[in-house]
Amino acid sequence: MKFITYVKEDRESIGVLKDNYIIDFSYIFKNIGEENPPETMMEFIKYSNKNKLNQIEEFLNRDNLEEFSVDRVKVSAPIPYPERNVFCLGKNYAEHAREVKITRITGTDIPENPIYFTKIASPAIGQEDSIKFSTKVTQQVDYESELAVIIGKDGSNIKEENAEDYIFGYTIINDVSARDLQGKHTQWFKGKSLDTFCPMGPVIVHKNEIPFPVELNIGSKVNGELRQNSNTKKLIFDIPYIISDLSKGITLKAGDIIATGTPSGVGMGFDPVKVLKDGDVVECFIEKIGSLKNEIKEI
Amino acid sequence: MKFITYVKEDRESIGVLKDNYIIDFSYIFKNIGEENPPETMMEFIKYSNKNKLNQIEEFLNRDNLEEFSVDRVKVSAPIPYPERNVFCLGKNYAEHAREVKITRITGTDIPENPIYFTKIASPAIGQEDSIKFSTKVTQQVDYESELAVIIGKDGSNIKEENAEDYIFGYTIINDVSARDLQGKHTQWFKGKSLDTFCPMGPVIVHKNEIPFPVELNIGSKVNGELRQNSNTKKLIFDIPYIISDLSKGITLKAGDIIATGTPSGVGMGFDPVKVLKDGDVVECFIEKIGSLKNEIKEI
Repeated sequence: MKFITYVKEDRESIGVLKDNYIIDFSYIFKNIGEENPPETMMEFIKYSNKNKLNQIEEFLNRDNLEEFSVDRVKVSAPIPYPERNVFCLGKNYAEHAREVKITRITGTDIPENPIYFTKIASPAIGQEDSIKFSTKVTQQVDYESELAVIIGKDGSNIKEENAEDYIFGYTIINDVSARDLQGKHTQWFKGKSLDTFCPMGPVIVHKNEIPFPVELNIGSKVNGELRQNSNTKKLIFDIPYIISDLSKGITLKAGDIIATGTPSGVGMGFDPVKVLKDGDVVECFIEKIGSLKNEIKEI
Repeated sequence: MKFITYVKEDRESIGVLKDNYIIDFSYIFKNIGEENPPETMMEFIKYSNKNKLNQIEEFLNRDNLEEFSVDRVKVSAPIPYPERNVFCLGKNYAEHAREVKITRITGTDIPENPIYFTKIASPAIGQEDSIKFSTKVTQQVDYESELAVIIGKDGSNIKEENAEDYIFGYTIINDVSARDLQGKHTQWFKGKSLDTFCPMGPVIVHKNEIPFPVELNIGSKVNGELRQNSNTKKLIFDIPYIISDLSKGITLKAGDIIATGTPSGVGMGFDPVKVLKDGDVVECFIEKIGSLKNEIKEI
């Protein structure tokens, strides 16, 4: 199943996306006899268990469901207000680590341990929302197409072999980055966290739809030009490793989001570097999840 | 006024602390005719305005208030579940920057620009809660006594001269740090974010009680031995600068917390380094705010 957060008639709701049609959760829950249905994706993730998901899936197989086209709504970030910053990995594809030359920081091109930092995602922006920046704040805005893992249940010190149990599903994050601010402040947080710098979506795909280990084509286009083109099987630290390593001493919580890093082809990897400018359209795509499209607006 | 979050009879509540006595907010609000009182400190910060605060202060001047000793309750972190990670500053006192030698990262001892990173604080721990760690995860746990600024209203691109308007109040954060993990992962986030590594409190002091610019003695003790002893006037980047600089392109939100950095005297500044071990008691103190005491527990 694909889960979506959307705005219709000024009200934010959650639902299932099926062949470009939305079946609203309040309708589903009413029909499966749920009296206190979750109202946000965060509540849904915390509430959902195998039984509930099976019930929903069964209900969706019925004929004559009440549904409407996704084109009639505004698609929001699936989790517009995560309860903690997004956990991010830096330099987690070898070719990307090389293109941005991290030797100064780590001593080697390829990190020996995961590089974790965070990104503000509260609020996150959704499909077709604008990525906005002022040239007074940054003059080097870049894109990073990333597979994001949504945690499904709380856990710490998780073993690699159990990692999949802790996953709820997957989405796309564009880890928009102000390269000049990353350098200026040495730690990357601020350059990654400007307002609107966390496009997320368009949907969360439940883990049942994606075989494990996760091997999905991932990439990005700017104004239709292919820039990044790789596969998540090339992650240096793969998903089980990340979940296991990150959760050593840190309790991951249902609804937490981990952006797993970006492949080569970002703007700063080109010579001369390519920065995003007013009117550019960035599209991040991942096989089986979809495409996340946002326009750049100088403000 | 000093605001406190506490647990009494298994229920978390908020109130005002006055001469070691708590006056509960639900009692105060009932008496000032508020029908939908905030139930958490986060709600209170968003709800509070000058008028409301004046009303509360006036009410507290009455005789025969219903109150009880703070010794009868468990004191929680004032904001146990911040909506975003704590914003932290690294190396923001010159003597501390020198003691930990940051030349490798910044090229100079003293940072030319603020170093921002984040720390998980959801949940944060409170007065007398234990700081827990396993030696399988880290063997270099250190303390950092810090003045934390609580943002009172949303704002971006805030001018230095208006910074105080955006402050709600102040508290203490012990920015507990796993030094080995800071090095291992190069970005500091994970080493700063282990479970229980964000002691906060014991109270939030409203900004009206602390003259601006903020010049408060700050320090820490380990098992009664004075380790850090400085004054917040020695901040390299002061509070107006931080609020102004951080809010360039980032909307700070009511309830956001900024930990402003720690003075010299941390464990890793000694030769040989001093690490925290099972049974140690760390006390972080700031003039006019109080003292935040936590015991170390190896698990």
